Amino acid sequence: MMKKRWRDLAELYRNALLSDVIPFWQRHSIDTRCGGFYTCLDRDGTVFDTDKFVWLQARQVWLFAMLYNRLEQRDAWLDIARHGARFLRRHGMDSDGNWYFALTSDGRPLVQPCNIFSDCFAAMAFSQYALAVGDDQARQIAERTYRNILARKHNPKGQYSKAVPTTRPTIAMALPMILANLSLELQWLLDARTVNESIEMCLAELFGLFLDPDTSLLHEHVSPDGRRLDCFDGRLINPGHSIEAMWFVMDLASRRNDTATIAKAVDVMLATIEFGWDRQHGGIFYFLDSRHRPPQQLEWDQKLWWVHLESLVALAMAYRLTARRDCWSWYQKIHDYTWQRFPDPDCGEWYGYLDRAGRVLLPLKGGKWKGCFHLPRALYMCMRQFEQLSDPAPD
Amino acid sequence: MMKKRWRDLAELYRNALLSDVIPFWQRHSIDTRCGGFYTCLDRDGTVFDTDKFVWLQARQVWLFAMLYNRLEQRDAWLDIARHGARFLRRHGMDSDGNWYFALTSDGRPLVQPCNIFSDCFAAMAFSQYALAVGDDQARQIAERTYRNILARKHNPKGQYSKAVPTTRPTIAMALPMILANLSLELQWLLDARTVNESIEMCLAELFGLFLDPDTSLLHEHVSPDGRRLDCFDGRLINPGHSIEAMWFVMDLASRRNDTATIAKAVDVMLATIEFGWDRQHGGIFYFLDSRHRPPQQLEWDQKLWWVHLESLVALAMAYRLTARRDCWSWYQKIHDYTWQRFPDPDCGEWYGYLDRAGRVLLPLKGGKWKGCFHLPRALYMCMRQFEQLSDPAPD
Repeated sequence: MMKKRWRDLAELYRNALLSDVIPFWQRHSIDTRCGGFYTCLDRDGTVFDTDKFVWLQARQVWLFAMLYNRLEQRDAWLDIARHGARFLRRHGMDSDGNWYFALTSDGRPLVQPCNIFSDCFAAMAFSQYALAVGDDQARQIAERTYRNILARKHNPKGQYSKAVPTTRPTIAMALPMILANLSLELQWLLDARTVNESIEMCLAELFGLFLDPDTSLLHEHVSPDGRRLDCFDGRLINPGHSIEAMWFVMDLASRRNDTATIAKAVDVMLATIEFGWDRQHGGIFYFLDSRHRPPQQLEWDQKLWWVHLESLVALAMAYRLTARRDCWSWYQKIHDYTWQRFPDPDCGEWYGYLDRAGRVLLPLKGGKWKGCFHLPRALYMCMRQFEQLSDPAPD
Repeated sequence: MMKKRWRDLAELYRNALLSDVIPFWQRHSIDTRCGGFYTCLDRDGTVFDTDKFVWLQARQVWLFAMLYNRLEQRDAWLDIARHGARFLRRHGMDSDGNWYFALTSDGRPLVQPCNIFSDCFAAMAFSQYALAVGDDQARQIAERTYRNILARKHNPKGQYSKAVPTTRPTIAMALPMILANLSLELQWLLDARTVNESIEMCLAELFGLFLDPDTSLLHEHVSPDGRRLDCFDGRLINPGHSIEAMWFVMDLASRRNDTATIAKAVDVMLATIEFGWDRQHGGIFYFLDSRHRPPQQLEWDQKLWWVHLESLVALAMAYRLTARRDCWSWYQKIHDYTWQRFPDPDCGEWYGYLDRAGRVLLPLKGGKWKGCFHLPRALYMCMRQFEQLSDPAPD
């Protein structure tokens, strides 16, 4: 990477966010007929599938409300958040207030509330939206959904869980992570004790149960008492998810001036990048087996947009908080890899899925799992990190 | 491909089956301590995971019993079938006779009976095994499982189904296919009427509902009245599955001397190969979208062993039954692709998963989905096709 001044980097991210990515979603994703958003957008923004996945609907509401709350109070952004919130409020929940997984374009339920992450993103969406508009009904939806998640958290899949519960009890890292994130997001409407307990629980579980102290790697699944499990799920390392988790931790630790936790999160993040980096083709693998056995996921060697963007956020934040030179040199390496391959200069927005060699695997800009979320959030977060830096960059 | 005599081709397949593949599984897969089979075998046969997936346990029982019944009555083969059948009988079912999806190495249930294909392969396994040993208890297990499948077939996922049933009713091609196959397998213990009805139902559904007459492609999912569905599942084409289905159809039609149905199956099979062939790198894609939109499956462009082996069976059988030159020229093209890339000359057996360019993606010989089934079955089937040919091969 050319030696950049912090201001240039902040400007790079701001431009990508405001002149490319956000306009792309404004132009192509709004369903003016039925409400809500199209997320299955082909390379040029053409809608190639009209189903509506509640995760992605909620994430887009969150994103536009967040930009309104934190970056600039643009009416156009608030209108988009309102447009999505209205659709979700009308169609997103079953009669018990559980959030469906997928809807038809006109809002009829397609897939049952089988996935608690629909609820998590809905709570985040309505919380940000309520903050933006001061809407008490939205605030109530956020709070009610949050309580419902707490009530379901010990059996998040409910009747859809296929595991025989007693044979090999397993807990997943995703749950404490999302709860900590949620509690921070909903901090303004929760009491301080709930928020603090949730954060303490997250840190204790992450570093006490999911972290392997020998390798400094986080496992996606362990036994409830933190033992490694020698099975596909137990050996699974998801580098992008670990790295994202570590910037959540840095973020919340920095609010408490907890430098020990920041240092620990940076160590784990760097160990994960070292482990996950593809020495042959560059980029970070999607899935790996902690013992170097064949992973179960056939897409293990692909290079995904969000993995690289979360790494850039984590490294920029780690450098801002610690000024560690290894963070800065990894930042530059992944910056170059990412900015050379993912942005689409012809049609705008970024590719999501590259093959191992870094070539485009799917030309889509949005699909069943890629929406208006990781890319604009990371662009925003990186911009903010570089805005806050002032010392000269190291060589 | 060098111009081969039929006898040479039959010999090639026989050698691969009897001198390479079957000995590999005999050597590495038998769990002499707990019973049953290890299926997660690394490149050289080392066991890398000990969980036992009921599908693969049952398929291996079926395969060894089938070889015993149809190829040669070797005691060693029958012992292996018995070894697996004993483990399955002891550990494979819940108290209602539904088959679990996965077990620990010592047979404790890990994953509930959420997948009716566990039951299908168990029925096939116990039927072949009962035929081999004249064991009435095994015959009863096969028959009871078959009746159970019929009872569950209108709601095969039961409580684990996540679809809201009324919004977009959908039927899957997998079910009629497996039922026709099962009915043929269990023919010796079922009454003729049951078998015939099942086969008629399969043909009527396949060609009346799942086939798109405009493209001659089979869709994996359609509405119950055969309408195309414009959604990810509805647009999904699984070339390997369609091609496998077509040799099942050719096989059962040839037993009835139904040349019209054979011709139809050959047309669909060739249309599928034309559609699924990767003109850039060779090989047949794993998943495609019927409207050339981005498929949901990230592994869509990979080249899988079973897809190519089922194609060789289908093309060899089609050529034997029809002498169509286009079947023979496709056979040669896919023969060369397959035999050059999948066999592992150093460690034996065949790779399962290649990337788009045909390079090894995972070095394993067995895993959660690859066991002792598609490869030896296809080697056996191809051998049999070429043994039955006598006219000289076309240029």
